[in-house]
Amino acid sequence: MNDEIAMKSIQAFFRKDLFAGFVGIELIEAGEGRARARLTISDHHRNGLGLVHGGAIFTLADLAFAAAVNSRGRAAVAIHCSISYLKAAAGDVLFAEAEEVSCGPKIAAYTIRITDASGEIISRFEGMAYRKKEHW
Amino acid sequence: MNDEIAMKSIQAFFRKDLFAGFVGIELIEAGEGRARARLTISDHHRNGLGLVHGGAIFTLADLAFAAAVNSRGRAAVAIHCSISYLKAAAGDVLFAEAEEVSCGPKIAAYTIRITDASGEIISRFEGMAYRKKEHW
Amino acid sequence: MNDEIAMKSIQAFFRKDLFAGFVGIELIEAGEGRARARLTISDHHRNGLGLVHGGAIFTLADLAFAAAVNSRGRAAVAIHCSISYLKAAAGDVLFAEAEEVSCGPKIAAYTIRITDASGEIISRFEGMAYRKKEHW
Amino acid sequence: MNDEIAMKSIQAFFRKDLFAGFVGIELIEAGEGRARARLTISDHHRNGLGLVHGGAIFTLADLAFAAAVNSRGRAAVAIHCSISYLKAAAGDVLFAEAEEVSCGPKIAAYTIRITDASGEIISRFEGMAYRKKEHW
Repeated sequence: MNDEIAMKSIQAFFRKDLFAGFVGIELIEAGEGRARARLTISDHHRNGLGLVHGGAIFTLADLAFAAAVNSRGRAAVAIHCSISYLKAAAGDVLFAEAEEVSCGPKIAAYTIRITDASGEIISRFEGMAYRKKEHW
Repeated sequence: MNDEIAMKSIQAFFRKDLFAGFVGIELIEAGEGRARARLTISDHHRNGLGLVHGGAIFTLADLAFAAAVNSRGRAAVAIHCSISYLKAAAGDVLFAEAEEVSCGPKIAAYTIRITDASGEIISRFEGMAYRKKEHW
Repeated sequence: MNDEIAMKSIQAFFRKDLFAGFVGIELIEAGEGRARARLTISDHHRNGLGLVHGGAIFTLADLAFAAAVNSRGRAAVAIHCSISYLKAAAGDVLFAEAEEVSCGPKIAAYTIRITDASGEIISRFEGMAYRKKEHW
Repeated sequence: MNDEIAMKSIQAFFRKDLFAGFVGIELIEAGEGRARARLTISDHHRNGLGLVHGGAIFTLADLAFAAAVNSRGRAAVAIHCSISYLKAAAGDVLFAEAEEVSCGPKIAAYTIRITDASGEIISRFEGMAYRKKEHW
């Protein structure tokens, strides 16, 4: 399967991710254990203090995580995720970039860096997934 | 401040949490370091596998966490959160219940249990917050 | 298997935990998904600032976690652990108490409270384990 | 302060870390938000299953984390650490390498990769620290 077909196949899969679509997250690229996603910030992504909501940042990172681990071909489900909030976001767009730490037969681990419009890291996300036997 | 007034004050604060409102999360109760929130599941809360999206579960737990720590009177911001996914949710409603582990002068920690319609725990969330000097 | 025999069986198993023994950790009780352990603090448990070392606190909590999950009868290995440091320890003894959050066919989750001589919580540990098919 | 003096200063500080010394951990290098540490495995670092103990791996990573954040000049204390166990260690030496994710005025975050004799990653550790005003 070449890269372009792989990317189309993953994008078709994530088009069925209704919550990510509802929140407004776009999958930019995915393949070979990596992925990138974007969220353009609107008022409805903010919390009571006017900051981008932790749940919106988490959901953005989670999509990049899911796309990266599922790009390895087998269906995978998250078992543990954590997020560190490092600074407030500037501007109105966020990017999440997933990098593979390790992909074993059962357990896979990823680190996701979330950056804002200035390119600075605002949050760091780590995810572990359990890889099923079947393909998605 | 009596309990009823405190609850109204916290609910007014969380009415400004636009993302929680957008996702459909309701704050049921809050006060004295505790809080409970609810999410009624619709199709748009699901992921590509048809399961409740991890980001939706996280956002539900995060609201209970935020309400619990802010019920202590000072503005608090999350610094680290983690979530363990323990089983798939049954039925179409989820509850999150936040319990205080410790509330120090700067750092506070909470555990949030997320249960489904059957009353079984499906996820466990832990949050740490940094407490600011000012009131929200 | 009655409780006393179960406890002896678990204690025999953890007698083979050479690192816990080296560090000086004692298993006080274990069974039915719960466990309690103790560490009497000496100088060699401290870090460069004179505080009890995070690694010593982690190892204490980890033993309680391992005893609790293995008390369910099947061999289990940790896949993810996290620890929140809430306050400095007072006095020269620490206790860790493990409580079961959930014990599924493959994944089990525990919360461990670490308390000091004053009875106050100083750290909170959360562990997830993968349960193997075989008995230990 | 040139690099060699900085490294000597940090090493002198960590010579006072009695627990790391007791466990047998050596600080190899530290400076500019980075650090590397090593643990040569003996029998007393193993658990009841004969594997390297999670507490020993954690303590190794924790030293690299502490050296990296303290290399920034101000005293820092850990507030949250987590560790993912990815595969069993091969051979009898482990290395931990700390990399800075972000170093703000109050909060700093690091990722530590733990590798075995074969060079493969066996665990991933993430640490957050609170930076005090004073120098250590």
